[in-house]
Amino acid sequence: MRSALVDENGDIMERRSILSGAGKGIDYVMTNLAMLIGETISGKNVAGVGIGIPGIIDSARGILTQAPNISNVDDYPIRDALAEKMGSSIPVFIENDANCAAVGEWWVGAGKSVDSLVIITLGTGVGGGIILKGELWSGADGMAGEIGHITVFPNGAKCNCGNFGCLESYASASAIRRMVKEGLNDNKLETILRKKSRGVSGEKLPETVMEAAVEGDKFALWIWDEVGKALGIGIANVVNLLNVEMVVIGGGLSNSWELFIGQSLTEARKRGLRAPINRVEIKKTLLGDDAGIIGAAYLALKHQSPL
Amino acid sequence: MRSALVDENGDIMERRSILSGAGKGIDYVMTNLAMLIGETISGKNVAGVGIGIPGIIDSARGILTQAPNISNVDDYPIRDALAEKMGSSIPVFIENDANCAAVGEWWVGAGKSVDSLVIITLGTGVGGGIILKGELWSGADGMAGEIGHITVFPNGAKCNCGNFGCLESYASASAIRRMVKEGLNDNKLETILRKKSRGVSGEKLPETVMEAAVEGDKFALWIWDEVGKALGIGIANVVNLLNVEMVVIGGGLSNSWELFIGQSLTEARKRGLRAPINRVEIKKTLLGDDAGIIGAAYLALKHQSPL
Repeated sequence: MRSALVDENGDIMERRSILSGAGKGIDYVMTNLAMLIGETISGKNVAGVGIGIPGIIDSARGILTQAPNISNVDDYPIRDALAEKMGSSIPVFIENDANCAAVGEWWVGAGKSVDSLVIITLGTGVGGGIILKGELWSGADGMAGEIGHITVFPNGAKCNCGNFGCLESYASASAIRRMVKEGLNDNKLETILRKKSRGVSGEKLPETVMEAAVEGDKFALWIWDEVGKALGIGIANVVNLLNVEMVVIGGGLSNSWELFIGQSLTEARKRGLRAPINRVEIKKTLLGDDAGIIGAAYLALKHQSPL
Repeated sequence: MRSALVDENGDIMERRSILSGAGKGIDYVMTNLAMLIGETISGKNVAGVGIGIPGIIDSARGILTQAPNISNVDDYPIRDALAEKMGSSIPVFIENDANCAAVGEWWVGAGKSVDSLVIITLGTGVGGGIILKGELWSGADGMAGEIGHITVFPNGAKCNCGNFGCLESYASASAIRRMVKEGLNDNKLETILRKKSRGVSGEKLPETVMEAAVEGDKFALWIWDEVGKALGIGIANVVNLLNVEMVVIGGGLSNSWELFIGQSLTEARKRGLRAPINRVEIKKTLLGDDAGIIGAAYLALKHQSPL
């Protein structure tokens, strides 16, 4: 878990981090979280605390509905639990992490100059967040922006969600792991990835595939083409549906921007309606890993809701 | 062109209609429109005039950007032109017709009880409109809601927009015409549509395919399955992205509701994320052809902008 002191201009003044201990359950995480916040705000006069969490959030009621990475979480009243642990009356605002990233990029990042944007975060999975009229649209249940689960290839690879051919099953770190594994199962396939990927952790594999592509490996280049093509279909769907001014691409895979963005733009222009696809700006994240933390701070600043 | 007097409860008091003469160009249409409005409001004390038009609208500036059905339209200042023709200072509000339908259904139709909905209109083409937080989201250029151009089958049939496999190329009257034509080209195909569709106009063909399906014709039933499946993918994409409370299905094809909705629900549930797809209500239009006219009236009432 990472924390930061953010000023009213969206600048980060100080940073801290701590292991979440997510595997040990929500109580353990909450103790760590309260400690991290306590250290961060100690002796400071802060307006509020904003928290971005990977999961489904009911931000109005301060409830963590579901959190895939933390065991035993089911409609957990995180805002009240935190108030108790901290023994403080400082206002706390809670939101999904990809939604926070959308807010951060809109506030002081790539989307600073626009009123509407969609962020697509290409990480282990694919997340997203939607800003319209300068406001977050988080959906009727805090579930909006699940761009990773747009169907891009109806008969495609199985996704973790149970569906087939989701964007996430083609444009995420886990999709890259699948494609590498499937490719290497074919003994005749010539690729430097056979050697290069040996002993590389799943988390680091996209970086290895990036290196192989940069060295000109055809299989690695094909993988990035697949990522790019799926992302392009996703972008076109988002743009045709929402006619936003900007699409921001974030997440770890955005480090390989040059390897997939050409294919994405080709596909998006092929499938997007003329006016909206020509006008939309498609940009790489400006804030990177800090987008979420800065967006959470913005939400705390603007929506001070009593703890 | 149809007009109506609508009261503050969304009830239609009086109706009128006139041929638009769209083929004769925008000036001719405007003269007819001014006449129709004049007759409708003559002797009445109306708060404003709302107009729904198939095309791309810049409603803030009162500009008709593009109108596929009217010749010689390109950034036409429709609000000012109408003021001149009418010689009146009554406030006029202009919006895309599918967006008006979304507003109408939300105000007094199927979506009366919700704050967020998407309408999908299955007509000659497929249109759509988006209501979030009780407000129309018409996009950065008035182009939002083009649900017909979501890609559902990436390698599918060519769409009028130039893309392949759009929802519109599977779930519209023109898609049904294509499927019938392609099917009948196969001389071995046994179907009562071979005889039944002879001499039937393109506009009436979906009705004929509906009748054939009701009579148990396998080919006709297959066509409705195709419509339903494509619509189901479109619904899942919309729901995963926007987490709205309701999806309303309108347009002429919605008359064949029973023939496609089962397949749509199966497909949508397969591809939708659990929480948002289980909670979304999928409803048939309540207002039918009147949704647009009632929605336009609402917009005129709420956004009185000086002509």
